[in-house]
Amino acid sequence: MTEMTRVSDGFSLADVDPDSTPGFDGGKAEGETALRDGVDELSELQERLFAASRAGDTRNVLLVIQAMDTAGKGGIVRHVVGQVDPQGVALRSFKAPTDEERSHHFLWRIERALPGPGMIGVFDRSHYEDVLIGRVRQLAPADEIERRYGEIVDFEQRIVDSGTELIKVMLHISPDEQKKRLQERLDRPDKYWKFNPGDIDERSQWDAYMEAYQIALTRTSTERAPWYVVPANRKWYARLAVQRLLTDALRRIDPQWPDADFDVEHERARLAAS
Amino acid sequence: MTEMTRVSDGFSLADVDPDSTPGFDGGKAEGETALRDGVDELSELQERLFAASRAGDTRNVLLVIQAMDTAGKGGIVRHVVGQVDPQGVALRSFKAPTDEERSHHFLWRIERALPGPGMIGVFDRSHYEDVLIGRVRQLAPADEIERRYGEIVDFEQRIVDSGTELIKVMLHISPDEQKKRLQERLDRPDKYWKFNPGDIDERSQWDAYMEAYQIALTRTSTERAPWYVVPANRKWYARLAVQRLLTDALRRIDPQWPDADFDVEHERARLAAS
Repeated sequence: MTEMTRVSDGFSLADVDPDSTPGFDGGKAEGETALRDGVDELSELQERLFAASRAGDTRNVLLVIQAMDTAGKGGIVRHVVGQVDPQGVALRSFKAPTDEERSHHFLWRIERALPGPGMIGVFDRSHYEDVLIGRVRQLAPADEIERRYGEIVDFEQRIVDSGTELIKVMLHISPDEQKKRLQERLDRPDKYWKFNPGDIDERSQWDAYMEAYQIALTRTSTERAPWYVVPANRKWYARLAVQRLLTDALRRIDPQWPDADFDVEHERARLAAS
Repeated sequence: MTEMTRVSDGFSLADVDPDSTPGFDGGKAEGETALRDGVDELSELQERLFAASRAGDTRNVLLVIQAMDTAGKGGIVRHVVGQVDPQGVALRSFKAPTDEERSHHFLWRIERALPGPGMIGVFDRSHYEDVLIGRVRQLAPADEIERRYGEIVDFEQRIVDSGTELIKVMLHISPDEQKKRLQERLDRPDKYWKFNPGDIDERSQWDAYMEAYQIALTRTSTERAPWYVVPANRKWYARLAVQRLLTDALRRIDPQWPDADFDVEHERARLAAS
Protein backbone atom coordinates (compact mmCIF):
# COMPACT_ATOMS: atom_id res chain seq x y z
CA MET A 1 0.00 0.00 0.00
CA THR A 2 2.88 2.36 0.56
CA GLU A 3 4.08 2.35 -3.05
CA MET A 4 0.59 3.31 -4.22
CA THR A 5 0.71 6.57 -2.31
CA ARG A 6 4.12 7.62 -3.62
CA VAL A 7 4.42 10.85 -5.58
CA SER A 8 6.07 10.26 -8.94
CA ASP A 9 5.96 11.61 -12.49
CA GLY A 10 2.56 12.88 -13.53
CA PHE A 11 1.23 12.96 -10.01
CA SER A 12 -1.89 15.01 -9.50
CA LEU A 13 -3.09 15.74 -5.99
CA ALA A 14 -6.57 16.49 -7.32
CA ASP A 15 -6.82 12.86 -8.40
CA VAL A 16 -6.22 11.45 -4.92
CA ASP A 17 -9.48 10.59 -3.19
CA PRO A 18 -9.14 11.38 0.54
CA ASP A 19 -11.74 8.69 1.26
CA SER A 20 -9.79 5.97 -0.50
CA THR A 21 -7.62 3.27 1.08
CA PRO A 22 -5.12 2.42 -1.67
CA GLY A 23 -3.62 -1.03 -1.35
CA PHE A 24 -5.82 -2.08 1.54
CA ASP A 25 -9.02 -3.99 0.94
CA GLY A 26 -10.40 -4.24 4.45
CA GLY A 27 -12.45 -1.79 6.46
CA LYS A 28 -11.91 -0.11 9.80
CA ALA A 29 -11.89 -3.26 11.93
CA GLU A 30 -9.38 -5.01 9.68
CA GLY A 31 -7.29 -1.85 9.50
CA GLU A 32 -7.11 -1.56 13.27
CA THR A 33 -6.17 -5.20 13.56
CA ALA A 34 -3.46 -4.73 10.95
CA LEU A 35 -2.15 -1.71 12.87
CA ARG A 36 -1.88 -3.76 16.04
CA ASP A 37 -0.27 -6.62 14.15
CA GLY A 38 2.40 -4.27 12.92
CA VAL A 39 3.50 -3.02 16.33
CA ASP A 40 5.97 -5.77 17.19
CA GLU A 41 7.99 -5.52 14.01
CA LEU A 42 8.14 -1.73 14.11
CA SER A 43 9.08 -1.77 17.74
CA GLU A 44 11.84 -4.34 17.29
CA LEU A 45 13.28 -2.55 14.27
CA GLN A 46 13.35 0.68 16.24
CA GLU A 47 15.19 -0.99 19.09
CA ARG A 48 17.70 -2.50 16.67
CA LEU A 49 18.27 0.89 15.08
CA PHE A 50 18.90 2.41 18.49
CA ALA A 51 21.17 -0.45 19.53
CA ALA A 52 23.18 -0.24 16.31
CA SER A 53 23.86 3.43 16.95
CA ARG A 54 25.54 2.51 20.21
CA ALA A 55 28.08 0.60 18.16
CA GLY A 56 28.73 3.52 15.85
CA ASP A 57 26.05 3.09 13.18
CA THR A 58 25.01 6.65 12.37
CA ARG A 59 21.92 5.88 10.32
CA ASN A 60 18.52 7.12 11.36
CA VAL A 61 15.02 7.89 10.14
CA LEU A 62 13.25 11.18 9.64
CA LEU A 63 9.50 11.27 9.19
CA VAL A 64 8.18 14.61 7.97
CA ILE A 65 4.43 15.10 8.35
CA GLN A 66 2.55 17.86 6.60
CA ALA A 67 -1.18 18.37 6.40
CA MET A 68 -4.07 20.78 6.54
CA ASP A 69 -5.44 21.40 10.04
CA THR A 70 -7.33 18.50 11.64
CA ALA A 71 -5.90 15.99 9.17
CA GLY A 72 -4.56 13.87 12.00
CA LYS A 73 -0.90 14.68 12.50
CA GLY A 74 -1.31 14.41 16.24
CA GLY A 75 -3.02 11.04 15.92
CA ILE A 76 -0.12 9.69 13.88
CA VAL A 77 2.31 10.76 16.56
CA ARG A 78 0.13 9.36 19.33
CA HIS A 79 -0.89 6.08 17.73
CA VAL A 80 1.97 5.17 15.40
CA VAL A 81 5.10 6.86 16.68
CA GLY A 82 3.78 6.16 20.20
CA GLN A 83 4.11 2.43 19.48
CA VAL A 84 7.88 2.52 19.86
CA ASP A 85 10.16 3.29 22.78
CA PRO A 86 10.02 7.04 23.50
CA GLN A 87 13.75 6.92 24.16
CA GLY A 88 14.33 6.32 20.47
CA VAL A 89 12.10 9.12 19.21
CA ALA A 90 13.03 12.75 18.65
CA LEU A 91 9.82 14.64 18.11
CA ARG A 92 9.80 18.20 16.93
CA SER A 93 6.81 20.41 16.27
CA PHE A 94 7.39 23.47 14.09
CA LYS A 95 5.26 26.53 14.77
CA ALA A 96 5.38 29.91 13.09
CA PRO A 97 9.06 30.91 13.26
CA THR A 98 10.28 32.98 16.17
CA ASP A 99 12.06 36.27 15.59
CA GLU A 100 15.39 34.52 16.02
CA GLU A 101 14.44 31.79 13.55
CA ARG A 102 13.19 34.36 11.10
CA SER A 103 16.54 36.12 11.19
CA HIS A 104 18.18 32.99 9.78
CA HIS A 105 17.84 31.04 6.54
CA PHE A 106 14.59 29.05 6.61
CA LEU A 107 16.50 25.76 6.84
CA TRP A 108 18.50 26.88 9.89
CA ARG A 109 15.97 25.73 12.48
CA ILE A 110 15.40 22.50 10.54
CA GLU A 111 19.09 21.60 10.47
CA ARG A 112 19.30 22.09 14.23
CA ALA A 113 16.38 19.74 14.78
CA LEU A 114 17.70 16.81 12.73
CA PRO A 115 17.65 13.53 14.66
CA GLY A 116 20.83 11.98 15.98
CA PRO A 117 22.19 8.54 15.12
CA GLY A 118 19.81 5.68 15.82
CA MET A 119 16.83 7.94 16.35
CA ILE A 120 13.50 8.18 14.64
CA GLY A 121 13.01 11.88 14.11
CA VAL A 122 9.49 13.14 13.59
CA PHE A 123 8.71 16.60 12.25
CA ASP A 124 5.18 17.82 12.90
CA ARG A 125 5.23 20.44 10.14
CA SER A 126 8.61 21.33 8.73
CA HIS A 127 10.55 23.41 6.22
CA TYR A 128 7.66 22.77 3.84
CA GLU A 129 5.66 25.41 5.68
CA ASP A 130 7.98 27.88 3.97
CA VAL A 131 6.67 26.87 0.55
CA LEU A 132 3.08 26.16 1.65
CA ILE A 133 1.74 28.88 3.94
CA GLY A 134 4.76 30.84 2.73
CA ARG A 135 3.42 30.70 -0.81
CA VAL A 136 -0.29 31.04 -0.05
CA ARG A 137 0.17 33.98 2.31
CA GLN A 138 3.06 35.47 0.32
CA LEU A 139 5.27 35.57 3.39
CA ALA A 140 8.32 35.93 1.17
CA PRO A 141 8.95 37.39 -2.30
CA ALA A 142 7.92 35.11 -5.15
CA ASP A 143 11.48 34.61 -6.38
CA GLU A 144 12.60 33.56 -2.94
CA ILE A 145 9.78 31.03 -2.62
CA GLU A 146 10.80 29.80 -6.06
CA ARG A 147 14.41 29.34 -4.96
CA ARG A 148 13.39 27.36 -1.89
CA TYR A 149 12.27 24.27 -3.78
CA GLY A 150 15.77 23.72 -5.12
CA GLU A 151 17.31 24.48 -1.74
CA ILE A 152 15.05 21.91 -0.13
CA VAL A 153 16.00 19.26 -2.67
CA ASP A 154 19.71 19.92 -2.10
CA PHE A 155 19.31 20.00 1.66
CA GLU A 156 17.39 16.73 1.73
CA GLN A 157 19.89 15.08 -0.61
CA ARG A 158 22.63 15.94 1.85
CA ILE A 159 20.61 14.48 4.74
CA VAL A 160 19.94 11.31 2.81
CA ASP A 161 23.59 11.02 1.75
CA SER A 162 24.63 11.18 5.38
CA GLY A 163 22.55 8.11 6.22
CA THR A 164 19.01 9.24 6.94
CA GLU A 165 15.99 7.42 5.59
CA LEU A 166 13.70 10.34 4.85
CA ILE A 167 9.95 9.79 4.61
CA LYS A 168 7.73 12.70 3.72
CA VAL A 169 4.03 12.28 4.27
CA MET A 170 1.14 14.52 3.36
CA LEU A 171 -2.04 13.50 5.16
CA HIS A 172 -4.75 14.31 2.69
CA ILE A 173 -8.26 15.14 3.87
CA SER A 174 -11.20 16.68 2.06
CA PRO A 175 -12.64 20.09 2.94
CA ASP A 176 -15.88 18.42 4.04
CA GLU A 177 -14.05 16.12 6.40
CA GLN A 178 -12.19 19.10 7.83
CA LYS A 179 -15.49 20.88 8.36
CA LYS A 180 -16.80 17.89 10.30
CA ARG A 181 -13.71 17.76 12.46
CA LEU A 182 -13.70 21.49 13.17
CA GLN A 183 -17.39 21.22 14.01
CA GLU A 184 -16.53 18.57 16.59
CA ARG A 185 -13.98 20.87 18.17
CA LEU A 186 -16.69 23.48 18.52
CA ASP A 187 -19.22 21.02 19.92
CA ARG A 188 -17.05 19.48 22.64
CA PRO A 189 -15.67 21.62 25.49
CA ASP A 190 -12.80 19.13 25.87
CA LYS A 191 -11.83 19.96 22.28
CA TYR A 192 -12.06 23.76 22.43
CA TRP A 193 -8.35 24.01 23.14
CA LYS A 194 -7.60 22.49 19.77
CA PHE A 195 -9.69 25.05 17.94
CA ASN A 196 -8.15 28.17 16.52
CA PRO A 197 -10.32 30.73 14.70
CA GLY A 198 -7.42 31.11 12.26
CA ASP A 199 -8.15 27.57 11.04
CA ILE A 200 -11.31 28.85 9.40
CA ASP A 201 -9.39 31.65 7.69
CA GLU A 202 -6.89 29.14 6.33
CA ARG A 203 -9.78 26.99 5.21
CA SER A 204 -10.99 29.75 2.93
CA GLN A 205 -7.70 29.34 1.05
CA TRP A 206 -8.16 25.62 0.48
CA ASP A 207 -7.65 25.69 -3.27
CA ALA A 208 -4.57 27.86 -2.96
CA TYR A 209 -3.14 25.40 -0.43
CA MET A 210 -3.85 22.45 -2.69
CA GLU A 211 -2.05 24.24 -5.48
CA ALA A 212 0.90 24.96 -3.19
CA TYR A 213 0.98 21.31 -2.15
CA GLN A 214 0.80 20.12 -5.75
CA ILE A 215 3.81 22.27 -6.63
CA ALA A 216 5.80 21.36 -3.52
CA LEU A 217 5.08 17.65 -3.81
CA THR A 218 6.05 17.36 -7.44
CA ARG A 219 9.12 19.58 -7.26
CA THR A 220 10.62 17.95 -4.18
CA SER A 221 9.69 14.30 -4.47
CA THR A 222 12.92 12.56 -5.41
CA GLU A 223 14.15 8.99 -5.61
CA ARG A 224 15.72 9.07 -2.15
CA ALA A 225 13.44 11.66 -0.57
CA PRO A 226 10.01 10.77 -1.92
CA TRP A 227 6.69 12.21 -0.91
CA TYR A 228 3.77 10.00 0.02
CA VAL A 229 0.24 11.36 -0.14
CA VAL A 230 -1.80 9.37 2.34
CA PRO A 231 -5.58 9.63 2.10
CA ALA A 232 -6.61 10.60 5.60
CA ASN A 233 -10.38 10.92 5.78
CA ARG A 234 -10.24 7.52 7.44
CA LYS A 235 -7.91 7.91 10.39
CA TRP A 236 -7.35 4.18 10.74
CA TYR A 237 -6.05 3.98 7.18
CA ALA A 238 -3.68 6.91 7.54
CA ARG A 239 -2.20 5.42 10.71
CA LEU A 240 -1.73 2.04 9.10
CA ALA A 241 -0.14 3.57 6.00
CA VAL A 242 2.34 5.62 8.05
CA GLN A 243 3.15 2.63 10.24
CA ARG A 244 4.04 0.70 7.09
CA LEU A 245 6.08 3.56 5.67
CA LEU A 246 8.09 3.71 8.87
CA THR A 247 8.49 -0.05 8.95
CA ASP A 248 9.63 -0.10 5.32
CA ALA A 249 12.20 2.60 6.02
CA LEU A 250 13.59 0.62 8.93
CA ARG A 251 13.67 -2.55 6.86
CA ARG A 252 15.74 -0.75 4.25
CA ILE A 253 18.23 0.16 6.96
CA ASP A 254 18.01 -3.40 8.27
CA PRO A 255 19.75 -2.53 11.54
CA GLN A 256 21.57 -5.37 13.28
CA TRP A 257 22.16 -6.07 16.94
CA PRO A 258 25.75 -5.00 17.51
CA ASP A 259 28.43 -7.57 18.26
CA ALA A 260 29.83 -7.58 21.75
CA ASP A 261 32.72 -5.12 22.03
CA PHE A 262 33.94 -7.04 25.07
CA ASP A 263 35.01 -10.62 25.74
CA VAL A 264 31.78 -12.36 26.67
CA GLU A 265 33.41 -15.27 28.48
CA HIS A 266 35.70 -13.00 30.42
CA GLU A 267 32.79 -10.83 31.53
CA ARG A 268 30.77 -13.89 32.51
CA ALA A 269 33.60 -14.99 34.77
CA ARG A 270 33.93 -11.52 36.29
CA LEU A 271 30.19 -11.39 36.88
CA ALA A 272 30.15 -14.83 38.49
CA ALA A 273 32.92 -13.73 40.84
CA SER A 274 31.18 -10.49 41.74
CA MET B 1 0.75 2.01 47.60
CA THR B 2 2.58 5.19 46.74
CA GLU B 3 2.57 6.61 50.26
CA MET B 4 4.16 3.41 51.54
CA THR B 5 7.24 3.95 49.43
CA ARG B 6 7.77 7.56 50.48
CA VAL B 7 11.01 8.51 52.22
CA SER B 8 10.32 10.25 55.50
CA ASP B 9 11.90 10.62 58.95
CA GLY B 10 13.75 7.54 60.11
CA PHE B 11 13.87 6.01 56.65
CA SER B 12 16.39 3.23 56.20
CA LEU B 13 17.12 1.96 52.71
CA ALA B 14 18.51 -1.25 54.18
CA ASP B 15 15.04 -2.03 55.50
CA VAL B 16 13.36 -1.90 52.10
CA ASP B 17 12.97 -5.36 50.61
CA PRO B 18 13.48 -5.13 46.82
CA ASP B 19 11.24 -8.18 46.41
CA SER B 20 8.33 -6.61 48.23
CA THR B 21 5.22 -5.01 46.72
CA PRO B 22 4.11 -2.53 49.38
CA GLY B 23 0.44 -1.64 49.20
CA PHE B 24 -0.36 -4.16 46.50
CA ASP B 25 -1.70 -7.58 47.41
CA GLY B 26 -1.89 -9.22 44.01
CA GLY B 27 0.75 -10.95 41.96
CA LYS B 28 2.13 -10.35 38.49
CA ALA B 29 -1.09 -11.00 36.58
CA GLU B 30 -3.12 -8.68 38.79
CA GLY B 31 -0.35 -6.10 38.64
CA GLU B 32 -0.30 -6.12 34.87
CA THR B 33 -4.06 -5.80 34.77
CA ALA B 34 -3.91 -2.88 37.18
CA LEU B 35 -1.26 -1.23 35.00
CA ARG B 36 -3.51 -1.51 31.95
CA ASP B 37 -6.48 -0.28 33.95
CA GLY B 38 -4.56 2.84 34.87
CA VAL B 39 -3.71 3.90 31.32
CA ASP B 40 -6.88 5.81 30.50
CA GLU B 41 -6.80 8.06 33.54
CA LEU B 42 -3.11 8.81 33.19
CA SER B 43 -3.51 9.50 29.52
CA GLU B 44 -6.48 11.83 29.98
CA LEU B 45 -4.80 13.72 32.80
CA GLN B 46 -1.73 14.21 30.63
CA GLU B 47 -3.85 15.56 27.79
CA ARG B 48 -5.62 17.93 30.17
CA LEU B 49 -2.29 19.15 31.50
CA PHE B 50 -1.09 19.81 27.97
CA ALA B 51 -4.35 21.50 26.99
CA ALA B 52 -4.31 23.72 30.08
CA SER B 53 -0.85 24.97 29.17
CA ARG B 54 -2.22 26.27 25.88
CA ALA B 55 -4.42 28.57 27.93
CA GLY B 56 -1.51 29.84 30.01
CA ASP B 57 -1.33 27.32 32.83
CA THR B 58 2.39 26.89 33.46
CA ARG B 59 2.27 23.89 35.74
CA ASN B 60 4.01 20.68 34.79
CA VAL B 61 5.43 17.44 36.14
CA LEU B 62 8.99 16.26 36.52
CA LEU B 63 9.74 12.62 37.18
CA VAL B 64 13.32 11.96 38.26
CA ILE B 65 14.43 8.33 38.04
CA GLN B 66 17.56 7.05 39.72
CA ALA B 67 18.70 3.47 40.09
CA MET B 68 21.55 1.03 39.96
CA ASP B 69 22.20 -0.45 36.50
CA THR B 70 19.58 -2.89 35.20
CA ALA B 71 16.99 -1.75 37.74
CA GLY B 72 14.53 -0.97 34.96
CA LYS B 73 14.68 2.76 34.22
CA GLY B 74 14.26 2.06 30.54
CA GLY B 75 11.26 -0.15 31.17
CA ILE B 76 9.55 2.61 33.13
CA VAL B 77 10.04 4.99 30.25
CA ARG B 78 8.88 2.44 27.70
CA HIS B 79 5.92 0.99 29.58
CA VAL B 80 4.66 3.81 31.80
CA VAL B 81 5.74 7.08 30.23
CA GLY B 82 5.07 5.44 26.85
CA GLN B 83 1.39 5.19 27.79
CA VAL B 84 0.81 8.88 27.21
CA ASP B 85 1.03 11.07 24.13
CA PRO B 86 4.70 11.50 23.17
CA GLN B 87 3.90 15.13 22.31
CA GLY B 88 3.41 15.83 26.00
CA VAL B 89 6.62 14.19 27.19
CA ALA B 90 10.07 15.73 27.45
CA LEU B 91 12.51 12.92 28.07
CA ARG B 92 16.09 13.56 29.00
CA SER B 93 18.80 11.05 29.68
CA PHE B 94 21.84 12.28 31.62
CA LYS B 95 25.17 10.65 30.87
CA ALA B 96 28.56 11.43 32.31
CA PRO B 97 28.89 15.20 31.90
CA THR B 98 30.59 16.56 28.78
CA ASP B 99 33.56 18.90 29.04
CA GLU B 100 31.23 21.85 28.56
CA GLU B 101 28.85 20.63 31.25
CA ARG B 102 31.74 19.99 33.59
CA SER B 103 32.88 23.57 33.22
CA HIS B 104 29.60 24.76 34.73
CA HIS B 105 27.91 24.27 38.10
CA PHE B 106 26.51 20.75 38.34
CA LEU B 107 22.94 22.07 38.22
CA TRP B 108 23.52 24.02 34.99
CA ARG B 109 22.67 21.18 32.63
CA ILE B 110 19.71 20.21 34.79
CA GLU B 111 18.22 23.69 34.71
CA ARG B 112 18.45 23.74 30.93
CA ALA B 113 16.59 20.45 30.68
CA LEU B 114 13.61 21.39 32.84
CA PRO B 115 10.28 20.67 31.14
CA GLY B 116 8.14 23.46 29.74
CA PRO B 117 4.56 24.28 30.76
CA GLY B 118 2.11 21.42 30.36
CA MET B 119 4.82 18.84 29.85
CA ILE B 120 5.71 15.70 31.73
CA GLY B 121 9.47 15.86 32.02
CA VAL B 122 11.34 12.64 32.67
CA PHE B 123 14.95 12.54 33.81
CA ASP B 124 16.70 9.22 33.31
CA ARG B 125 19.44 9.88 35.88
CA SER B 126 19.82 13.45 37.04
CA HIS B 127 21.67 15.86 39.32
CA TYR B 128 21.67 13.08 41.89
CA GLU B 129 24.51 11.42 39.99
CA ASP B 130 26.63 14.22 41.41
CA VAL B 131 26.04 12.98 44.95
CA LEU B 132 25.89 9.27 44.09
CA ILE B 133 28.68 8.25 41.72
CA GLY B 134 30.15 11.63 42.63
CA ARG B 135 30.44 10.52 46.24
CA VAL B 136 31.36 6.89 45.66
CA ARG B 137 34.05 7.67 43.10
CA GLN B 138 35.12 10.88 44.84
CA LEU B 139 34.68 12.89 41.66
CA ALA B 140 34.63 16.10 43.67
CA PRO B 141 36.15 17.18 47.01
CA ALA B 142 34.23 15.97 50.05
CA ASP B 143 33.21 19.47 51.12
CA GLU B 144 31.81 20.17 47.68
CA ILE B 145 29.78 16.94 47.68
CA GLU B 146 28.59 17.97 51.13
CA ARG B 147 27.47 21.37 49.87
CA ARG B 148 25.52 19.84 46.98
CA TYR B 149 22.76 18.35 49.13
CA GLY B 150 21.70 21.77 50.30
CA GLU B 151 22.01 23.20 46.80
CA ILE B 152 19.78 20.45 45.49
CA VAL B 153 17.15 21.11 48.15
CA ASP B 154 17.14 24.83 47.34
CA PHE B 155 17.08 24.20 43.60
CA GLU B 156 14.19 21.78 43.85
CA GLN B 157 12.26 24.11 46.14
CA ARG B 158 12.52 26.78 43.47
CA ILE B 159 11.25 24.37 40.81
CA VAL B 160 8.36 23.32 42.99
CA ASP B 161 7.52 26.91 43.86
CA SER B 162 7.30 27.74 40.18
CA GLY B 163 4.59 25.14 39.63
CA THR B 164 6.25 21.80 39.04
CA GLU B 165 5.05 18.61 40.66
CA LEU B 166 8.35 16.88 41.33
CA ILE B 167 8.46 13.12 41.81
CA LYS B 168 11.76 11.48 42.63
CA VAL B 169 11.95 7.73 42.33
CA MET B 170 14.68 5.31 43.23
CA LEU B 171 14.12 1.91 41.68
CA HIS B 172 15.51 -0.46 44.24
CA ILE B 173 16.86 -3.86 43.21
CA SER B 174 18.97 -6.38 45.07
CA PRO B 175 22.51 -7.28 44.05
CA ASP B 176 21.35 -10.82 43.25
CA GLU B 177 18.66 -9.55 40.94
CA GLN B 178 21.20 -7.33 39.23
CA LYS B 179 23.48 -10.31 38.75
CA LYS B 180 20.65 -12.21 37.08
CA ARG B 181 19.88 -9.32 34.77
CA LEU B 182 23.51 -8.75 33.83
CA GLN B 183 23.81 -12.47 33.21
CA GLU B 184 20.94 -12.26 30.78
CA ARG B 185 22.67 -9.45 28.91
CA LEU B 186 25.68 -11.71 28.53
CA ASP B 187 23.59 -14.69 27.44
CA ARG B 188 21.58 -12.99 24.72
CA PRO B 189 23.28 -11.45 21.68
CA ASP B 190 20.33 -9.06 21.30
CA LYS B 191 21.17 -7.74 24.77
CA TYR B 192 24.94 -7.36 24.37
CA TRP B 193 24.53 -3.71 23.45
CA LYS B 194 23.09 -3.01 26.86
CA PHE B 195 26.06 -4.52 28.64
CA ASN B 196 28.96 -2.41 29.76
CA PRO B 197 31.95 -3.99 31.52
CA GLY B 198 31.97 -0.93 33.76
CA ASP B 199 28.67 -2.15 35.24
CA ILE B 200 30.56 -4.95 36.97
CA ASP B 201 33.08 -2.48 38.38
CA GLU B 202 30.27 -0.36 39.78
CA ARG B 203 28.70 -3.50 41.21
CA SER B 204 31.74 -4.07 43.38
CA GLN B 205 30.90 -0.78 45.09
CA TRP B 206 27.33 -1.81 45.90
CA ASP B 207 27.53 -1.06 49.60
CA ALA B 208 29.11 2.32 48.99
CA TYR B 209 26.32 3.15 46.55
CA MET B 210 23.65 2.12 49.03
CA GLU B 211 25.27 4.37 51.60
CA ALA B 212 25.36 7.24 49.11
CA TYR B 213 21.68 6.64 48.31
CA GLN B 214 20.75 6.51 51.99
CA ILE B 215 22.40 9.88 52.54
CA ALA B 216 21.00 11.49 49.41
CA LEU B 217 17.48 10.17 49.98
CA THR B 218 17.23 11.30 53.56
CA ARG B 219 18.90 14.68 53.05
CA THR B 220 16.87 15.70 50.01
CA SER B 221 13.44 14.20 50.60
CA THR B 222 11.24 17.16 51.47
CA GLU B 223 7.54 17.78 51.82
CA ARG B 224 7.14 19.11 48.31
CA ALA B 225 10.01 17.18 46.68
CA PRO B 226 9.78 13.76 48.26
CA TRP B 227 11.71 10.66 47.34
CA TYR B 228 9.97 7.36 46.72
CA VAL B 229 11.92 4.13 46.99
CA VAL B 230 10.16 1.66 44.74
CA PRO B 231 11.08 -2.02 45.18
CA ALA B 232 12.02 -3.10 41.67
CA ASN B 233 12.95 -6.77 41.69
CA ARG B 234 9.49 -7.28 40.26
CA LYS B 235 9.31 -5.13 37.16
CA TRP B 236 5.53 -5.23 37.03
CA TYR B 237 5.32 -3.75 40.51
CA ALA B 238 7.78 -0.95 39.83
CA ARG B 239 5.89 0.05 36.69
CA LEU B 240 2.57 0.06 38.49
CA ALA B 241 3.97 2.08 41.38
CA VAL B 242 5.45 4.72 39.07
CA GLN B 243 2.24 4.88 37.04
CA ARG B 244 0.38 5.64 40.26
CA LEU B 245 2.93 8.21 41.38
CA LEU B 246 2.55 10.00 38.06
CA THR B 247 -1.22 9.77 38.21
CA ASP B 248 -1.25 11.12 41.77
CA ALA B 249 0.93 14.06 40.75
CA LEU B 250 -1.42 14.90 37.91
CA ARG B 251 -4.45 14.58 40.17
CA ARG B 252 -2.88 17.08 42.55
CA ILE B 253 -2.56 19.51 39.65
CA ASP B 254 -6.10 18.62 38.59
CA PRO B 255 -5.71 20.27 35.19
CA GLN B 256 -8.91 21.49 33.53
CA TRP B 257 -9.90 21.72 29.90
CA PRO B 258 -9.49 25.40 29.08
CA ASP B 259 -12.52 27.54 28.36
CA ALA B 260 -12.95 28.69 24.79
CA ASP B 261 -11.03 31.91 24.20
CA PHE B 262 -13.29 32.61 21.24
CA ASP B 263 -17.03 33.05 20.73
CA VAL B 264 -18.24 29.51 20.10
CA GLU B 265 -21.49 30.52 18.39
CA HIS B 266 -19.75 33.02 16.18
CA GLU B 267 -17.18 30.44 15.10
CA ARG B 268 -19.91 27.88 14.43
CA ALA B 269 -21.59 30.35 12.11
CA ARG B 270 -18.31 31.13 10.33
CA LEU B 271 -17.57 27.43 9.94
CA ALA B 272 -21.05 26.72 8.57
CA ALA B 273 -20.56 29.47 6.00
CA SER B 274 -17.13 28.22 4.97
